Amino acid sequence: MFENVRRMMWECWSRELDEEELVEGGDFDEFSSRRVSMNGHGPSQMVDPLDDPLPGVGTYEDFNTIDWVREKSKDRDRHREITHKSRESTVALLLRISDAFSGWLLMLLVGLMAGALAGGIDIAAHWLTDMKEGVCLNGFWFNHEHCCWTSSEPTFQERDRCPQWQSWAELFSGTSTGALAYSLNYLMYILWALLFSFLAVTLVRAFAPYACGSGIPEIKTILSGFIIRGYLGKWTLITKTITLVLAVSSGLSLGKEGPLVHVACCCANILCHLFTKYRKNEAKRREVLSAAAAVGVSVAFGAPIGGVLFSLEEVSYYFPLKTLWRSFFAALVAAFTLRSINPFGNSRLVLFYVEFHAPWHLVELAPFILLGIFGGLWGALFIRANIAWCRIRKTTRLGHYSVVEVVLVTGLTALLAFPNSYTRMSGSELISELFNDCTLLDSSQLCGYKQLPNISDTGVGNTLGDRPAGEALYTALWQLALALLFKMMITVITFGMKVPSGLFIPSMAIGAIAGRLLGVAMEQLAYYNHDSLIFKGWCSQGADCITPGLYAMVGAAACLGGVTRMTVSLVVIMFELTGGLEYIVPLMAATMTSKWVADAFGREGIYEAHIRLNGYPFLEPKEEFEQSSLAVDVMRPRRADPALATLTQDGMNVGEVEALVESTHYSGFPVVVSQESQRLVGFVLRRDLLISIDNARKRQEGVVSASQVVFTEHTPPLPPEAPPPLRLRGIVDLSPFTVTDHTAMDITVDIFRKLGLRQCLVTHNVRLLGIITKKDILKHMAQISNRDPDSILFN
Amino acid sequence: MFENVRRMMWECWSRELDEEELVEGGDFDEFSSRRVSMNGHGPSQMVDPLDDPLPGVGTYEDFNTIDWVREKSKDRDRHREITHKSRESTVALLLRISDAFSGWLLMLLVGLMAGALAGGIDIAAHWLTDMKEGVCLNGFWFNHEHCCWTSSEPTFQERDRCPQWQSWAELFSGTSTGALAYSLNYLMYILWALLFSFLAVTLVRAFAPYACGSGIPEIKTILSGFIIRGYLGKWTLITKTITLVLAVSSGLSLGKEGPLVHVACCCANILCHLFTKYRKNEAKRREVLSAAAAVGVSVAFGAPIGGVLFSLEEVSYYFPLKTLWRSFFAALVAAFTLRSINPFGNSRLVLFYVEFHAPWHLVELAPFILLGIFGGLWGALFIRANIAWCRIRKTTRLGHYSVVEVVLVTGLTALLAFPNSYTRMSGSELISELFNDCTLLDSSQLCGYKQLPNISDTGVGNTLGDRPAGEALYTALWQLALALLFKMMITVITFGMKVPSGLFIPSMAIGAIAGRLLGVAMEQLAYYNHDSLIFKGWCSQGADCITPGLYAMVGAAACLGGVTRMTVSLVVIMFELTGGLEYIVPLMAATMTSKWVADAFGREGIYEAHIRLNGYPFLEPKEEFEQSSLAVDVMRPRRADPALATLTQDGMNVGEVEALVESTHYSGFPVVVSQESQRLVGFVLRRDLLISIDNARKRQEGVVSASQVVFTEHTPPLPPEAPPPLRLRGIVDLSPFTVTDHTAMDITVDIFRKLGLRQCLVTHNVRLLGIITKKDILKHMAQISNRDPDSILFN
Repeated sequence: MFENVRRMMWECWSRELDEEELVEGGDFDEFSSRRVSMNGHGPSQMVDPLDDPLPGVGTYEDFNTIDWVREKSKDRDRHREITHKSRESTVALLLRISDAFSGWLLMLLVGLMAGALAGGIDIAAHWLTDMKEGVCLNGFWFNHEHCCWTSSEPTFQERDRCPQWQSWAELFSGTSTGALAYSLNYLMYILWALLFSFLAVTLVRAFAPYACGSGIPEIKTILSGFIIRGYLGKWTLITKTITLVLAVSSGLSLGKEGPLVHVACCCANILCHLFTKYRKNEAKRREVLSAAAAVGVSVAFGAPIGGVLFSLEEVSYYFPLKTLWRSFFAALVAAFTLRSINPFGNSRLVLFYVEFHAPWHLVELAPFILLGIFGGLWGALFIRANIAWCRIRKTTRLGHYSVVEVVLVTGLTALLAFPNSYTRMSGSELISELFNDCTLLDSSQLCGYKQLPNISDTGVGNTLGDRPAGEALYTALWQLALALLFKMMITVITFGMKVPSGLFIPSMAIGAIAGRLLGVAMEQLAYYNHDSLIFKGWCSQGADCITPGLYAMVGAAACLGGVTRMTVSLVVIMFELTGGLEYIVPLMAATMTSKWVADAFGREGIYEAHIRLNGYPFLEPKEEFEQSSLAVDVMRPRRADPALATLTQDGMNVGEVEALVESTHYSGFPVVVSQESQRLVGFVLRRDLLISIDNARKRQEGVVSASQVVFTEHTPPLPPEAPPPLRLRGIVDLSPFTVTDHTAMDITVDIFRKLGLRQCLVTHNVRLLGIITKKDILKHMAQISNRDPDSILFN
Repeated sequence: MFENVRRMMWECWSRELDEEELVEGGDFDEFSSRRVSMNGHGPSQMVDPLDDPLPGVGTYEDFNTIDWVREKSKDRDRHREITHKSRESTVALLLRISDAFSGWLLMLLVGLMAGALAGGIDIAAHWLTDMKEGVCLNGFWFNHEHCCWTSSEPTFQERDRCPQWQSWAELFSGTSTGALAYSLNYLMYILWALLFSFLAVTLVRAFAPYACGSGIPEIKTILSGFIIRGYLGKWTLITKTITLVLAVSSGLSLGKEGPLVHVACCCANILCHLFTKYRKNEAKRREVLSAAAAVGVSVAFGAPIGGVLFSLEEVSYYFPLKTLWRSFFAALVAAFTLRSINPFGNSRLVLFYVEFHAPWHLVELAPFILLGIFGGLWGALFIRANIAWCRIRKTTRLGHYSVVEVVLVTGLTALLAFPNSYTRMSGSELISELFNDCTLLDSSQLCGYKQLPNISDTGVGNTLGDRPAGEALYTALWQLALALLFKMMITVITFGMKVPSGLFIPSMAIGAIAGRLLGVAMEQLAYYNHDSLIFKGWCSQGADCITPGLYAMVGAAACLGGVTRMTVSLVVIMFELTGGLEYIVPLMAATMTSKWVADAFGREGIYEAHIRLNGYPFLEPKEEFEQSSLAVDVMRPRRADPALATLTQDGMNVGEVEALVESTHYSGFPVVVSQESQRLVGFVLRRDLLISIDNARKRQEGVVSASQVVFTEHTPPLPPEAPPPLRLRGIVDLSPFTVTDHTAMDITVDIFRKLGLRQCLVTHNVRLLGIITKKDILKHMAQISNRDPDSILFN
């Protein structure tokens, strides 16, 4: 079956990707790295002055893993060179200073661009969402709120129904009530939804297949050192921005918060091209991408600190402290850019601004923990169900009909969502309403408590005590319960479709509904039993002791935590929404519980699960390697395999080398002193070897198949009639990483993770025994957890 | 001169440390690790079943560096064993669960203990500080505020002068005014200050010399893997807690915030003894200590998120994400414990609660950046001056008179501080007052603006516009300017004395004074020039456009940033004080400028400078290694040196091994196949070797000097009359880290940092060439930056 998955996946991709995209949007492309100086690590130190670095040597192919050590070394060399030169002339000194500040400038630009894009997306999505319900007579480009901005109606609720804004029924039939109007509105709602989603999926399919999904699993993989050309390119950015607006507006159960991280990373990647330092170095570029992930969350929630912690905790692989500070700067710039665009129209930085009036009581920790358990269970269930559904999509013919699937799911969503006001409104509006504490002016159904014939008659402050639920509230609760069921079902099949789709908002919405339901239940319990043992003393009659909005918030955090397994960053994001340190404790209790419960059913969050589903070579930095195997158990060749393919430092000719390379598919070959001694000299990459030989054959005179290939510093004496040797010491990494065969695998895995290695050679008493690659480790890990080792694709 | 430093330092320590302390407070001691199973990394895999692990093998001596790889491997083995056993019985399963939750329990306990201690310190310091001014007639154990708590005086200012509280002059002479009363109060102030500081320094000297200073440089070093026995022991904790209160109360220019980090780390280290998992593993214990550093800052400022970021950015060396989450938990527990103790009497979590009313304007960024420049310059100057002064203290006879020094400085401080009300009050009171925005009820001199004959006559809200400065304010400004000069001088000589002393408060006070001065100047400028080009449009007459309190806060952040080079954590701590995201931008602008300016004069913060002054072997994780040297340039032996001391795997007898060990001082020896081939087998530590031979001579029959030492798996055939061989394969690390001689040093340094190595072997074509230790790297780095390589002490 796995072979099937693999084949399907490749088919799917090769079908959906046209070659042009790979090159055009190729932002991790080889062209940009062509002039990379090879005065770097390993190959560099003893480079023959005659051997100029060749174009392509030192770059990577698509779907390959970068060598962090080499990249970082390259950057340090570049930096040394600049520092050295800067002592010579003023121009060079200025260059050095501009180089030092280029990182900050880049961060500023990323912040500005991502903030502006996020603002644009917010405004456009708001407008298109309202479009599903009606149109503004003053101009179709106004959304509902802007349309009624200048309305003279006195109260907010009334202004909401200003004459300039006409629902489709009013426009077509002239009436806004009755079955006909309702049906008309219903129909238009579905039609618009279908149109938006059809456009979204078609655009994604036509221009940038990489624009689908949330993008976070892929960004995690890219940040860990993998190369997916075009994933962060300009076409992806443009397509994702447009289709994100369409997908959100179509009313599908998805959010724009995850994709905003992808959008921010695309911005960063494109802006990297302006600066040589980042354009030419995969490791440095990944530092910028880490910061961009922080920017994405910062603009999504208006939470710069939370964003930085999200990047640190959830997305980044290698996060030096220098990056932390710069990420924070970029996140802040982005947040303030967004605020000056002011898409929510309230000068608020945050998406859901909440202000609670009452503190919480220790007893309430019990329901908070209950919400945590719910969140954990939901998280575990969601991950399983969603992965199972995605697997069906991949392995059956369903995968071939992505447009039909999207349109069908949209139709179903719109059909079921319209009748219920809580599913009809957008996810973020729903969450906003659920988080809201019932205050004086609230006309919301959720605040439909009894004994308040006219809400504005009540006083201020502490007269807002707990009240018995009224008719309206009971109706709202029923609708919410139905909405909960609906959202739970539809989110499972929505996430993973071929449109941009984030998980934050649907997960939070589900948690918020559950939380609000529990909150109101607690409130009523307290109201009717205020003399019971539990409530006595802190929740007397008329006191405002239970805040259902807080329960909704805690529930949202719990569900999001269960699905993504975020911890600190989640709590900090939520804290930034409320701004009150005292609400951290409930949030933390729920998040901790939710993580523990969810972890009991499986340690992977949704992003890790999708990484595994897609077979990306991602070496999880958080998980401990538990097995007690040794390096010798994992290395290739295994006992039954043919011997390791090695090159000798001066004993092979070009033809032999080519034959060896042709006959194998390894991406690199160890160089040894001689086949007998197997004493290691260095390591040479297949790509570098092929490019060099190819180049030599074309440009260097006299290089034929019989020419000797020499990896040593000095050419050994050759017979006079021999063709000139091909000297390739320049491409040999003279300091390959080695471990002994007795090294425990947990240590080896640690080395791979912390240093970002691609491969490591295994020796015994200094005799070369074999090689361990990142893929070998991933396969070994898959094997010991009883998964199919061939599910790891790529190199 | 450096030899001098070194000698002095050792003399100082050997003089001030009594042997008992080393053992009694020995929390990194060998006893606790005696039963460490050796089924771990390297030595373990092929352990001879006859060779039981010996007590002491696998532990560390004082002033040595731990091997992170070995420690982590040991922990993974322990974990594997528990997991394995848990499948067998229910008891073992319960043990496994309790083991999994022990980390959380430990964090809870650390939070509770540190929070409680911090509360106690706050209360005691408050009481003793007030004691310098007077006494409560209701009971001497009341501080000023508590004494007047029940006072019936109506307004706050009046209540401040309740009849129950008597200044010393009132008590002794019956009057509170006049020259006599002033002199009496002055005298008592000085006397109490001298008494407190004398007690503090004597206690430190007598019980725990390690209790002096802020402790952060040493904690950084310990977290990087160094062992200083007793530094975090119970005597240090008790002494530091008591003397901290005394030192703060004595009025010296020092704060309790830094030492609170040390106190929290002591708590954590002591509590670690309750859990085997942490008691026996140096790496795991350091994870807890990292969290404790976060707890320390959390209780110091009431800023849990800032604390975690402080630990991450400033203190920790190895900070896995699991620790991040736990640190956050502990920091939160501590903050809430402190709040329930309520030492500030206002239910506020934070030390300086600020609420600003007016937003800031873009133009104001100019003065904010100016404050950043001031902070940077001050930071650079302070570090140089303080280090120079500390060096004088170490190298001259001054170091022998620590008690006299402390008493003299206290006397000077008290003498100069009393006449000026801004220096007389404690540092945190001063900062509070400077941060404060002038509101209605303020009777402070700093709010002495004109045209307000009676402050309470003014209305609320926006009538609080900028006003012209009055007489009182001008006086206050003069006093502040003098206080600034005084604080700047006295802090330089105070930090580094043999009393607990933190830098946060004095640095912040200096910045806050400078900021407030600039703020008032700006305010007056704006008031008198509100029609000028700069102020027009945003600062019209009567508008509340400039908030001097915000300037004070920005100045405080800038100075603290200049001195410590904190970045994100500093901004987040400050943000948690105000709670307003919009003030992050000024804070960030000032902090960034301050760091850049200060870095231009030297890249080290005060803590790094003190680490270097003390010669601790600390490998800075943030600094890039800039040189282009190779491993072969740094390794020992150098060309002129004698050959590397190696052991052969089966060619030496006990006498020869002992002679080799005796004749050298290396802390480990490579094991090779034979002296001729120099093919590496493994690495054995001096300590393990000595303990094992010693043990064998005592317990194992027939082991004499002529016995062959065998490091191989199988004993080679011996002549029949030979004494039984000594088999030591169990103590050999069979997977020592190796690099080739061509490996660039920047990569080698990276490996050392990221994996936490102690030493690394250097090979060439698999022939063992030499060894690089952490100390070699530090010496090399000292050399290339033109410092004395012998300034690195210890191993």
